[in-house]
Amino acid sequence: MKALFLSCTLKASLAPSKTEALAQVLVRQFEEEGITSEIVRLADYNVKPGVSSDEGEGDDWPFIRGKIVAADILVMGTPTWLGQHSSICQRALERMDAMLSETAEDGRPIAFDKVGGIVITGNEDGAHHIVACVSQPLIDIGFTMPANCWTYWHLGPGPGPDYLETDQAHDYSDRLARNAARNMAAVARALKASPLPQQETSG
Amino acid sequence: MKALFLSCTLKASLAPSKTEALAQVLVRQFEEEGITSEIVRLADYNVKPGVSSDEGEGDDWPFIRGKIVAADILVMGTPTWLGQHSSICQRALERMDAMLSETAEDGRPIAFDKVGGIVITGNEDGAHHIVACVSQPLIDIGFTMPANCWTYWHLGPGPGPDYLETDQAHDYSDRLARNAARNMAAVARALKASPLPQQETSG
Amino acid sequence: MKALFLSCTLKASLAPSKTEALAQVLVRQFEEEGITSEIVRLADYNVKPGVSSDEGEGDDWPFIRGKIVAADILVMGTPTWLGQHSSICQRALERMDAMLSETAEDGRPIAFDKVGGIVITGNEDGAHHIVACVSQPLIDIGFTMPANCWTYWHLGPGPGPDYLETDQAHDYSDRLARNAARNMAAVARALKASPLPQQETSG
Amino acid sequence: MKALFLSCTLKASLAPSKTEALAQVLVRQFEEEGITSEIVRLADYNVKPGVSSDEGEGDDWPFIRGKIVAADILVMGTPTWLGQHSSICQRALERMDAMLSETAEDGRPIAFDKVGGIVITGNEDGAHHIVACVSQPLIDIGFTMPANCWTYWHLGPGPGPDYLETDQAHDYSDRLARNAARNMAAVARALKASPLPQQETSG
Repeated sequence: MKALFLSCTLKASLAPSKTEALAQVLVRQFEEEGITSEIVRLADYNVKPGVSSDEGEGDDWPFIRGKIVAADILVMGTPTWLGQHSSICQRALERMDAMLSETAEDGRPIAFDKVGGIVITGNEDGAHHIVACVSQPLIDIGFTMPANCWTYWHLGPGPGPDYLETDQAHDYSDRLARNAARNMAAVARALKASPLPQQETSG
Repeated sequence: MKALFLSCTLKASLAPSKTEALAQVLVRQFEEEGITSEIVRLADYNVKPGVSSDEGEGDDWPFIRGKIVAADILVMGTPTWLGQHSSICQRALERMDAMLSETAEDGRPIAFDKVGGIVITGNEDGAHHIVACVSQPLIDIGFTMPANCWTYWHLGPGPGPDYLETDQAHDYSDRLARNAARNMAAVARALKASPLPQQETSG
Repeated sequence: MKALFLSCTLKASLAPSKTEALAQVLVRQFEEEGITSEIVRLADYNVKPGVSSDEGEGDDWPFIRGKIVAADILVMGTPTWLGQHSSICQRALERMDAMLSETAEDGRPIAFDKVGGIVITGNEDGAHHIVACVSQPLIDIGFTMPANCWTYWHLGPGPGPDYLETDQAHDYSDRLARNAARNMAAVARALKASPLPQQETSG
Repeated sequence: MKALFLSCTLKASLAPSKTEALAQVLVRQFEEEGITSEIVRLADYNVKPGVSSDEGEGDDWPFIRGKIVAADILVMGTPTWLGQHSSICQRALERMDAMLSETAEDGRPIAFDKVGGIVITGNEDGAHHIVACVSQPLIDIGFTMPANCWTYWHLGPGPGPDYLETDQAHDYSDRLARNAARNMAAVARALKASPLPQQETSG
């Protein structure tokens, strides 16, 4: 099984990413579960605005989309700015809008039997909001969101250090990360053994 | 398997509920799946404010909570007011806050292996927001949210008829309802066959 | 000018309220601005579910509503549970739904020229989400939300002390509180001097 | 006085924009109020990801930011995708994060005395959520959100025509648009006559 992390930090490689640092905790747990992980930093790609699966020349989304389709687990990793997920995370979800009507060979929605997860870092507030706002479109598109499928780290209130600048409360966020990975792995396996049914269509 | 619907309409029985009317579409589908359903209208009970599982004398929540614990599937049914879920829905979620730290005999969180779903009716707008705001706490508490585990009905923009006053677009919402029930049933069965793992605790 | 605080803590008087403790910082600033404040703890009242301004026998909302109508500034004070505002806060907003169509003697919406504000305390996360979810209905109902009209206090991630149990970061939240009060006072005065216009109605 | 519309449609000019079509109703009302409007379609520009006011070579944000600073009224216009505002809208808000700490010559936050507004079009759902999620950062940055400072149009549930494809319910959304423009104009004037006060800073 494969886990794909879409890292939605605003900085391209090689800038350090606090969100990817926390994501690494899930990667290690996935490894223990026999799941291989790949982290793709979206800021390194040209993901054009739009709601089709291919926005034409220069659009890197078809490459990203291929990785989503090939994965069993999709983890959105996002920083928090102004209490909300990043525009790059929103862009990726927006592009997945096309998946609302895309079906696999068996006629079921293309995201079926895949599970979702979320990793959030910031310096003060917003994680629960982001869980809400990222879970809703993923559920809508056809992902299943397992129990406790997320972790976050921030302090608050006001400006402060980030996840890379302090060890404070890492134990809490890291434990949540490992449990999240365990549950994502379990639900992904459960759905592999027992897939979602065919859907009634409007036709 | 059992499905519990918490109907969060603002009116006590016997006032007609448009949310329960749409919920009945899921009930019928659950029946086809061999799942028995119960709809509990929370406005008929005294659910006291608080975040413990028993707020003392006169509190009906322990009775409701017992039904949640006994169910495999929990569907929150809520009207939309000002674009948001009802205060009764929020009250129920708030009371479930206690479940964050409650474990079953096997040591796992009490909501594990249960799946959640959402039914929303209104007259103009707000369904996706409610899916976000209800999914997030349910995931946090330990419910798994299956792909497409919700349906809604409203028209828009501005004031207009409700689900009981017109047949407009019922076919769309009802089809979503049946698919939601199918997926909730499938994931509940998958988790019964292949339960979530033990969690790493802070101790 | 008068400021009304609706305290939406889940506990009735005389239980201590961390939200009211932070609200007191605004109260003191309002005093410096010549504005008298009143804090009403909604858990002490029977605010029935519903979307009319009077839900009949035993409903205390008409009493609360009278205070809102008489105030120039309305501050919603709420704790954070599961990353969201309290069900009591949601109940109050829900009852204000009736104000969408209520007009003053001059024919303008009853909330016009009033300003809103928000005070939030919790122990880990959710303030920005609550600002979003409380601002939207208040704006919808006819309140004007001034720049920086809110303050919050929480730490994070994970469980921890509350505002009454530590002095950590009080200076940040208290300064925000004073600035919020200054701006609410300024906008309330500006709207008194220069009221909102008549609205075009559907008739 | 000047109103700036940031059009956050996903398509560059000259593709038709349903959001801009609804925005034109506000433009006409602003004209009656003696306010000149400019609509800037962000998809025509290279707004780089980041949270500084200038992300270096090729970044068009400094040009856009200059227009925001020069405007008295800022209206965010966004389509709805998956029940949420567009990634382009999120990008613009994210870039405004820098304004949290930017001050004008008089030492007050750069957005002070400016008012915000929102125009939303979609085909099924999400307007109230977007009002919440756009109002919160604007308030945080220093904009004042007047009573009823938004309009929206969508039908629901399910796929359907857009604002440009049908006249259904235009009267409702257009009336809201005119009232929103009236109130934004009134509050902008009120704040010009009676500006927000100096803020207490941490120094």
